[in-house]
Amino acid sequence: MTTTRQVLLKSRPAGPAGPENFAMREAELPALAEGDIQARAIYMSVDPYMRGRLDAEKSYAANFQLGEPMIARCVGQVTESRNPKFQAGDVVVGMMDWADISVVRGGKGLARVDEALAPLPYFLGLLGMPGLTAWVGIREIGKPKEGETLFVSAASGAVGQLAGQMGKIAGCRVTGCAGTDAKIAYVTEELGFDAVFNHREEHDYLAAMQRVAPEGIDVNFENVGGAMLEAALEHANDYARFIQCGAISQYNLKGDARYGVRNLEHLHRKRITMRGFIVTDHWQRMGEFEEEVAGWLRDGRIKYKIDITDGLENATEAFLGLLAGENFGKQVIRIGADPD
Amino acid sequence: MTTTRQVLLKSRPAGPAGPENFAMREAELPALAEGDIQARAIYMSVDPYMRGRLDAEKSYAANFQLGEPMIARCVGQVTESRNPKFQAGDVVVGMMDWADISVVRGGKGLARVDEALAPLPYFLGLLGMPGLTAWVGIREIGKPKEGETLFVSAASGAVGQLAGQMGKIAGCRVTGCAGTDAKIAYVTEELGFDAVFNHREEHDYLAAMQRVAPEGIDVNFENVGGAMLEAALEHANDYARFIQCGAISQYNLKGDARYGVRNLEHLHRKRITMRGFIVTDHWQRMGEFEEEVAGWLRDGRIKYKIDITDGLENATEAFLGLLAGENFGKQVIRIGADPD
Repeated sequence: MTTTRQVLLKSRPAGPAGPENFAMREAELPALAEGDIQARAIYMSVDPYMRGRLDAEKSYAANFQLGEPMIARCVGQVTESRNPKFQAGDVVVGMMDWADISVVRGGKGLARVDEALAPLPYFLGLLGMPGLTAWVGIREIGKPKEGETLFVSAASGAVGQLAGQMGKIAGCRVTGCAGTDAKIAYVTEELGFDAVFNHREEHDYLAAMQRVAPEGIDVNFENVGGAMLEAALEHANDYARFIQCGAISQYNLKGDARYGVRNLEHLHRKRITMRGFIVTDHWQRMGEFEEEVAGWLRDGRIKYKIDITDGLENATEAFLGLLAGENFGKQVIRIGADPD
Repeated sequence: MTTTRQVLLKSRPAGPAGPENFAMREAELPALAEGDIQARAIYMSVDPYMRGRLDAEKSYAANFQLGEPMIARCVGQVTESRNPKFQAGDVVVGMMDWADISVVRGGKGLARVDEALAPLPYFLGLLGMPGLTAWVGIREIGKPKEGETLFVSAASGAVGQLAGQMGKIAGCRVTGCAGTDAKIAYVTEELGFDAVFNHREEHDYLAAMQRVAPEGIDVNFENVGGAMLEAALEHANDYARFIQCGAISQYNLKGDARYGVRNLEHLHRKRITMRGFIVTDHWQRMGEFEEEVAGWLRDGRIKYKIDITDGLENATEAFLGLLAGENFGKQVIRIGADPD
């Protein structure tokens, strides 16, 4: 029998999620059936969308079950395989438990990682779900053109980093907001964003947008929602495209505590298109995405910042910090040693 | 010299518009220059979008000027012409003053009316701007498919009537809301809507939508905005299309009095597309539109309800009533006698 630590959902948050909603336990893993694999986690991704999975009402991803381990995308290494497609020692990426070791039934959704392309945590960020999210949003919805202005909320986040750099590659003025001066320095000095404001210090978002984007917003990559979205609608140009990717400012709020956006009339006045999407609808484009983005990475045209927290025992705190904007770059948890 | 009555914008409303914001005067019309025409009004259109033209801040249509006659689309008859394209007696449609008689400089934007197609007021409704609005919204944005559910807010309004009937022609379940039982009886018994609720009597819009549209909303034709839009987002199906045409519930409100929509996160959760548009961007499709809709009218496949108020002196009151939902069908003002 193999035993492992697992992080469980203990209770569903009534408002903001807190440490009391989670628990860690030791558990015995079940034996493998034909097709199953067992893997140890090396890096685990925590992402804003997981907040919705803590609730009882259905979000777009299935809810986490009370008393069961939560799941997350991980880079891991196969420790035992009864699946002909994988063998012990393979480095893989896919959904696993919040745990040191997981059983993946039927090897479902696992893919082997090409370690030559990038450091392992990148497969949970730039070359993983957040990267594909940015790429699909920009390619399919925003379609920024040379000379246009792109605004990226949460500019230094897992998704925002690539969205903004894709805007620069497309020839746009790239602007946005971030929550610390260090994040702003990073995206402007390292990633080439033109102008970014600190949304924790400047609360008149509209005035800040008028300053960083004096010609108005043509493409808005929305990760924050609420008052930030309202200001972007106010500052949008005619025919603007709004990529509705996320709303981290709202995920921890319920009912009347949520922000009411008052100026949706701009949608018709300015002929704005807002389109929401979920990255999992676009997995079939992973090959095309990976080829392009890995090429940019190889050519030095893009960079990517990872924020690593050590230890499964610290995963919950890192996830809660992510919801509060405390991460700097794509947040991952280092759970195990590098591949053997 | 020709004299005429004109309705002026006297002051800009601070909140809801009222009779005190308007005035009527007698004025002398200027002499015609080369290219100009003079026309008497027969029917004049009043429309919700005009509310934005009363304000100082720019809306999508140019503001009305204080102390000057307001303008509106009218069906009228040419009384004098210095334009080779028109002669006295021609029945025309285009922008004229809120007045018995107007000078149209250069004959700009005027088109001759084919009286054989439909009764004259229809050229301000079904075959005019509201009809083209419904047709563009359904054709270009909503694209309802057989078996889908369409929800039309302001179902019996100038735009909603045609939008709903186009939904029936496309094979949809067609639902909506309207403000009186008579309006509901009309759209369900005469126009073929499947189920419509009374939004003045049922204030839990979401519960009402769940009843009239038990399979959810696939296409939402938005004319009302505010709480109605919030409920439609809540009740929308995955991949729903929201045709953002208007928001009559919000036009008379300022600042914090406007309704804040709290659930825009559904845009990404449900992969919703919301797209706003303005009909004047689509004038070039007028020929194609007129051919199709006039054909449906001739074949008895669609109907259209007009609400006629008599007399220029009652135009202001009818316009204010329209903003309060007191009209029943497309609101027009009868200003002059039928064509000679």
